Amino acid sequence: MKLTFSAASPFARKVRIAAIELGLIDKIEFSPVTVAPATQNEEYSRITPLKKLPVLILDNGEVILDSYVIVEYLDELAGGGKLIPSSGTLKWRVKSDHSLLQGMLDSMLLCRYEGIVRPEGLRWKAWSDDHWNRAWTGMARFEHHVEAMQARPFDIAQIGLVCVLGYADFRFPDCGWRKAYPRLDAFHQKMLERPSVKISVPPAA
Amino acid sequence: MKLTFSAASPFARKVRIAAIELGLIDKIEFSPVTVAPATQNEEYSRITPLKKLPVLILDNGEVILDSYVIVEYLDELAGGGKLIPSSGTLKWRVKSDHSLLQGMLDSMLLCRYEGIVRPEGLRWKAWSDDHWNRAWTGMARFEHHVEAMQARPFDIAQIGLVCVLGYADFRFPDCGWRKAYPRLDAFHQKMLERPSVKISVPPAA
Repeated sequence: MKLTFSAASPFARKVRIAAIELGLIDKIEFSPVTVAPATQNEEYSRITPLKKLPVLILDNGEVILDSYVIVEYLDELAGGGKLIPSSGTLKWRVKSDHSLLQGMLDSMLLCRYEGIVRPEGLRWKAWSDDHWNRAWTGMARFEHHVEAMQARPFDIAQIGLVCVLGYADFRFPDCGWRKAYPRLDAFHQKMLERPSVKISVPPAA
Repeated sequence: MKLTFSAASPFARKVRIAAIELGLIDKIEFSPVTVAPATQNEEYSRITPLKKLPVLILDNGEVILDSYVIVEYLDELAGGGKLIPSSGTLKWRVKSDHSLLQGMLDSMLLCRYEGIVRPEGLRWKAWSDDHWNRAWTGMARFEHHVEAMQARPFDIAQIGLVCVLGYADFRFPDCGWRKAYPRLDAFHQKMLERPSVKISVPPAA
């Protein structure tokens, strides 16, 4: 199977970490793709009209998206219940934590597009402030329960949090999350001991 | 349990249709919430930092998000495998179709924010063209396989498609999707025979 990939995409990073943790990384061919908002990529749009990374292309041609469903798919391939608990209260907590982190990443990408990609005269501060606030108050939420989260077996929500924090370092290096959220800093340092997390840190911007 | 809700939200509509189809609608109290980009709502941000609709608040206070995970939760509550196949190839097709439709809705909302909510002098045509193109070519994708989709038992992807088309009528009434995609038009008319779909049509804009 093939994964469309960019080392700069936090969503692709999530799948890469999951694939390493699940022992499936050698079964996946990484296919580099460049996408940018407001820029066409007709070839890639034929694979996915959303023009977003990553998608997983199976050997029979079926396309699996989005990054969350890809992780679900890989998890099932690895036997199930590995990175996403298969039952109980924990299942819904992990899934909801992950959805929150996914939305935080969406907001961070919108901030990046607003602040860097959009022509300078067309930027709207209230919009980026709102989206940054979603990511920032989301981090505050995790600061309060990251220790309970870390006590769980490694799961997709922890991967999501790693990807949020790594993306903050990559695209918003001056945002000061480490100072504001010391428990997230400790979590992030601990997570970097995992080879899957360390190898997938985004390249210097 | 409580669902934060707005009749204008296509994501909240998806959950409402699912809850009716699963026979769970009477167990859910609808809690109206108004959110808008670039506008604070501190009270709601305390419930979900993403400030998005809908979330499901369980009786024990746990918050389930996003709309997809809420439908998964309700589906399991109803016995499992009702609106999301629980195994097989179909499971991944339904989930991937749903993810595509979810991304199409995200893009349509971004178009709406760009074209209506953002101050007029700050709009960027290449951005809204790109996002509209994602929704539009996504519709073309479904036009090609809507008949196979419709032959399946009613599922979350069909609900997602209903919500995309209903949102197109609601916010982009002149986009001409019926003329461009006659099979989607036939699908939509057929779906309107379901009480869950008919009762949840967005109000006149």
